[in-house]
Amino acid sequence: MNLLIVNPNISSSVTDLIEAEARRVASPGTHIAMATAASGVAYIETRFEALLGAHAVAAIAGERIGQYDALLVAAFGDPGLLELREVLDVPVVGMTEAALMTAAQLGQRIGIIAISRRITAWYRECVDRYGMLSRLAGIRHLDRPLRDAGTIREEHGAALVALCERAVEQDGADVLILAGAPLAGLARSVAARLPVPVVDGVSSGVLQAEALVRLGPVRARDGSFARPPSKANMGLEGGSIANLLRSERVG
Amino acid sequence: MNLLIVNPNISSSVTDLIEAEARRVASPGTHIAMATAASGVAYIETRFEALLGAHAVAAIAGERIGQYDALLVAAFGDPGLLELREVLDVPVVGMTEAALMTAAQLGQRIGIIAISRRITAWYRECVDRYGMLSRLAGIRHLDRPLRDAGTIREEHGAALVALCERAVEQDGADVLILAGAPLAGLARSVAARLPVPVVDGVSSGVLQAEALVRLGPVRARDGSFARPPSKANMGLEGGSIANLLRSERVG
Amino acid sequence: MNLLIVNPNISSSVTDLIEAEARRVASPGTHIAMATAASGVAYIETRFEALLGAHAVAAIAGERIGQYDALLVAAFGDPGLLELREVLDVPVVGMTEAALMTAAQLGQRIGIIAISRRITAWYRECVDRYGMLSRLAGIRHLDRPLRDAGTIREEHGAALVALCERAVEQDGADVLILAGAPLAGLARSVAARLPVPVVDGVSSGVLQAEALVRLGPVRARDGSFARPPSKANMGLEGGSIANLLRSERVG
Amino acid sequence: MNLLIVNPNISSSVTDLIEAEARRVASPGTHIAMATAASGVAYIETRFEALLGAHAVAAIAGERIGQYDALLVAAFGDPGLLELREVLDVPVVGMTEAALMTAAQLGQRIGIIAISRRITAWYRECVDRYGMLSRLAGIRHLDRPLRDAGTIREEHGAALVALCERAVEQDGADVLILAGAPLAGLARSVAARLPVPVVDGVSSGVLQAEALVRLGPVRARDGSFARPPSKANMGLEGGSIANLLRSERVG
Amino acid sequence: MNLLIVNPNISSSVTDLIEAEARRVASPGTHIAMATAASGVAYIETRFEALLGAHAVAAIAGERIGQYDALLVAAFGDPGLLELREVLDVPVVGMTEAALMTAAQLGQRIGIIAISRRITAWYRECVDRYGMLSRLAGIRHLDRPLRDAGTIREEHGAALVALCERAVEQDGADVLILAGAPLAGLARSVAARLPVPVVDGVSSGVLQAEALVRLGPVRARDGSFARPPSKANMGLEGGSIANLLRSERVG
Amino acid sequence: MNLLIVNPNISSSVTDLIEAEARRVASPGTHIAMATAASGVAYIETRFEALLGAHAVAAIAGERIGQYDALLVAAFGDPGLLELREVLDVPVVGMTEAALMTAAQLGQRIGIIAISRRITAWYRECVDRYGMLSRLAGIRHLDRPLRDAGTIREEHGAALVALCERAVEQDGADVLILAGAPLAGLARSVAARLPVPVVDGVSSGVLQAEALVRLGPVRARDGSFARPPSKANMGLEGGSIANLLRSERVG
Repeated sequence: MNLLIVNPNISSSVTDLIEAEARRVASPGTHIAMATAASGVAYIETRFEALLGAHAVAAIAGERIGQYDALLVAAFGDPGLLELREVLDVPVVGMTEAALMTAAQLGQRIGIIAISRRITAWYRECVDRYGMLSRLAGIRHLDRPLRDAGTIREEHGAALVALCERAVEQDGADVLILAGAPLAGLARSVAARLPVPVVDGVSSGVLQAEALVRLGPVRARDGSFARPPSKANMGLEGGSIANLLRSERVG
Repeated sequence: MNLLIVNPNISSSVTDLIEAEARRVASPGTHIAMATAASGVAYIETRFEALLGAHAVAAIAGERIGQYDALLVAAFGDPGLLELREVLDVPVVGMTEAALMTAAQLGQRIGIIAISRRITAWYRECVDRYGMLSRLAGIRHLDRPLRDAGTIREEHGAALVALCERAVEQDGADVLILAGAPLAGLARSVAARLPVPVVDGVSSGVLQAEALVRLGPVRARDGSFARPPSKANMGLEGGSIANLLRSERVG
Repeated sequence: MNLLIVNPNISSSVTDLIEAEARRVASPGTHIAMATAASGVAYIETRFEALLGAHAVAAIAGERIGQYDALLVAAFGDPGLLELREVLDVPVVGMTEAALMTAAQLGQRIGIIAISRRITAWYRECVDRYGMLSRLAGIRHLDRPLRDAGTIREEHGAALVALCERAVEQDGADVLILAGAPLAGLARSVAARLPVPVVDGVSSGVLQAEALVRLGPVRARDGSFARPPSKANMGLEGGSIANLLRSERVG
Repeated sequence: MNLLIVNPNISSSVTDLIEAEARRVASPGTHIAMATAASGVAYIETRFEALLGAHAVAAIAGERIGQYDALLVAAFGDPGLLELREVLDVPVVGMTEAALMTAAQLGQRIGIIAISRRITAWYRECVDRYGMLSRLAGIRHLDRPLRDAGTIREEHGAALVALCERAVEQDGADVLILAGAPLAGLARSVAARLPVPVVDGVSSGVLQAEALVRLGPVRARDGSFARPPSKANMGLEGGSIANLLRSERVG
Repeated sequence: MNLLIVNPNISSSVTDLIEAEARRVASPGTHIAMATAASGVAYIETRFEALLGAHAVAAIAGERIGQYDALLVAAFGDPGLLELREVLDVPVVGMTEAALMTAAQLGQRIGIIAISRRITAWYRECVDRYGMLSRLAGIRHLDRPLRDAGTIREEHGAALVALCERAVEQDGADVLILAGAPLAGLARSVAARLPVPVVDGVSSGVLQAEALVRLGPVRARDGSFARPPSKANMGLEGGSIANLLRSERVG
Repeated sequence: MNLLIVNPNISSSVTDLIEAEARRVASPGTHIAMATAASGVAYIETRFEALLGAHAVAAIAGERIGQYDALLVAAFGDPGLLELREVLDVPVVGMTEAALMTAAQLGQRIGIIAISRRITAWYRECVDRYGMLSRLAGIRHLDRPLRDAGTIREEHGAALVALCERAVEQDGADVLILAGAPLAGLARSVAARLPVPVVDGVSSGVLQAEALVRLGPVRARDGSFARPPSKANMGLEGGSIANLLRSERVG
């Protein structure tokens, strides 16, 4: 299968981190292609930034239509996930959604560890959109910016372990989600020291994308994920987004 | 006050309907400016179409920054509302949110009358995002497309009245929201025949925008509606959206 | 329009504070009349006290029937609000409800600052009755009694600012409601120092009452806010409350 | 024990029905005293009518203070129940609450059969106030007024059985509450024909009152059911309600 | 009436504690028989342990079928309660459920005091299963094991009082449940020092069982507590559990 | 990996159906072993039957400990799933949970098609236990017993398609779960005629088990899925269940 992983942030260094984690977990038969948002911000932490990211993902999805069997939206809060699920004929997976659905099978109450205080509100709304708020033990976050992927282990390892322990002891978490590509790498290195299982978005996203492709669900012809009704449109990115609204195409 | 009303759909005829209703209800001191999405679809009914509309509203909000004291997002589901609330220094109001908050003061259970079956799923998620699902009596919808604004009264008046009556009798609605600019005009003509009060998005939006401006709230400097943290960005519509991310400006 | 503002407490000094705030925000065309409960307690903090207040408001509403275009219940927890909405032909607005619906348009999670610890349980139930518990970030309260309206700024200003800051930082509030007439005045003086927008019940109540009157909703003839079915009654305050149960009247 | 049963309606014929059912179920050691509201309406179906009933119950509770070991509020929606729980030193029980808590031990989903369509909205809010909405299978209601207690069996028996069957088959009810004193008598005569257990408010109220008295809970000195803080009051029914606010008394 | 109280734990010393509390509260006409699980663990704190306890209770219920008018499941989390309610023809009561439904009539928000940290997650799920999570103020727990029933008062009395006070002050509890047989005894000795009413599972269970038997509900013939449909079975404990699946029997 | 699939029902013909579906979807590297409950009933439809099934699954899990890398509980309602997750060191997957988490990534509102009316209540509680009730569009069920696996396609195909269509049109389902091994086979044959994607429990269970094993989560040492605290036990099935409570073992 061809899996297109789209980073809704404009940071190609984060794309590289995602790719490394994705390749580590992917099956031999999964061919991974990466893409980085051509517009937007360096790191999505808010609703507005997510809107920009969603738009950028849509442009890429439209451009490369027909070249992938599943698409993974690879940023916090899954910008554009539900939207694209309406217009694409193949499974669309989100890092957050996949991590939640995976974690839910490892414990009842899920703790989330995030990268900044600002991101937590947006992340909580995302959990709510998936109807999983009752499963959320809480969201805890690092306090200092993650600057250098090369030194992240030294700088943040101890803080991450401490956050995880508090999520278990004080919030009652049974399982944890480390919510960000840089955290995914870090998580692997500290997992053995943590008191409960941890899940990361990149691994969960790849595994769930593979599972959905193997399941081979039919495309919705009715319900709220059927293709939007045909209607006039204009100004859609020189055709790349308009591609997504065309009814005749190869998925 | 200067109120910018943005139609997230590309249909200028709908913009005209919105403007007519808005002028009818606005205070003498309210100066209304209208704008129509430069990209997107003719009529938003789905999540994906709403993403396109949100992006188009953001472009207009950025282009005209400094020219308005409040902005009203004038389409179902309030595309871009929460997102823009983060980046604008003035109140941002949505037709749906304003109608819900207004209706909530007229009855406990709110029935919504929508324009098509397809739109109801998206609309329900919107009510949910505002935490108002427990107030929702139900969503009912017309079955035939609204084609001609000129003959809408003849074609749909009776159907609308029947839907409203069923929302009250079968769903237990205490108050109704007519969810669409074309319905707003129609609603006025049938209101006296309805068993409970009706609210429409355009009127509610204008009234709530005026109320918020008169209240004069300070701009959030913290919390999840403070301006997004400063960071690198690129490709943001030749500057119009980038305007929204600049920290120094006249609101 | 004629707006009758009823203080469900027996304290005329609080009535004066409410009036001052109300006149400050009201439109030129709004004529404000004040009334103070003839029975009840000095300051409502509990369910039982609210029952007394609700009964006192009903007596005033019945006495002055025909003299107002909207009625504002001006105390915490909106004593009698939903009840009066059944029997009056004009909009009935509550300080708490109006503040919640206004605040909801300025941020997703709403923090409430209250006047005493005891009042918080009653206030939380009130938020719940409006279906807004999922929007509530938390309720924080002052610890010392508000005695002298004249020196309130000196005595409580710093404590209020500190509470507001904690509501934002620890509870995740995006917007705050200052829940009491004395706090309304105090709020204005400290608003510029607060990290998020603040809303008070008196201003919100007046603005929402004006909005509802301008909207001109029809009177419910069906649903749970239609007039109660005609039936025998007795002992209703020498007629003032009985007025509210009569089916033929000028609203 | 002395149990005071207060009918918040002014109808002494309903008081008689309640008394008959109460005596049937009460323990030999339970001495029942009845009281009927001195003000209010013939039959409470709405929020406003319930406010009148609550006030009337409070007047009786204050008048007879010291004469009862428990008080049962004997009407739909428990007018004044939570309010009186703050000011009385003895257990206060409500027909609805007692029926819900009893029914909850006989099945997971509870169906309610009510006496009129109008009453259902008020009743649903009551279930919600007790946090039991997730246990509610639905509320169904008779369509014709219950006029004559003498012929109720002939007139409504078949309709009642049909409603109960539909509540089980269509709403998924495991247990039913017959919500009204007249229905209680009727229920006994049809119980054997019903597919699931039925509970009525009068029996549940008496049994729960006896259970609470035997449990002998201490009076709350803190929390939201402690006595309201001492403060000035006025106009409280010539002393009968004022009795309830006095801090020194024999419960 | 004959009340069979089954301890789902294998500890006969705990059975003795339960019996002592049960006899203290039972009516003269209630004949109590005790039983102790023949398989399982010493003290149930987790879901898996509760499964073992539920199975052991079912074996006893089947063995003694026809010998009791009500059965009380006497351990935290009510192992087997809802399951047995399907197959027994008499009321089945659980300590936790009975305590919740009793406490709910004494206050709005219920605090639970538990015996260990580990047990709290299981207990919370139990409250949730009954739909009472919105009534839960919180769960607090002792930190040290309860070893010796003889010295429990000296060892844990002060800690228990401190937990109760914090549940009221910090969690907003109006009423408390002391969740364990050993705590029941302890509770009686400290009740007078606590700020709000306390309820224990053994007393509540006995009182609610008596109330249900006096109510005399019919056996469900439909809904989800009707007897399971007849079908093949095998291996059911030499007949004791198979007894429960037989359709013709004396309850 | 070695996957142990346990049928909690005693019907080996159903075990065969499960095996056939499981082998169809499993990866080449997945070695499947099947087991059938040695005690219990032919087909689990109720809480009590599920208790029997859970106990039987535990006995098998204990007997074969060390022989599998993941265990799939293969019946409706996942009997014993959360319980076993506490005591096994390997991932434990349930048909229902896996189907819900898979379906959740294909649509927002999930419709469930069940095998009998009786099973729907138990199934709904299962969805609720996973916190997914807000995602549930509804549960619809076949009306006639599924007797002969050989002729199921002819007998029930049309009924199944009709149920699915109604779930989409009337309940608003975006995706469907066919909840039973016999339905899984049937589903494949009708999938192309259905308007939305369908998911079955067997396929979802196998795919999710594979995903979890590849993820390689650490075993919880804290939280509510850590091993139960060491304590006395007795009577646990001649050692097979006792195996599960031993702290030193090879997972």
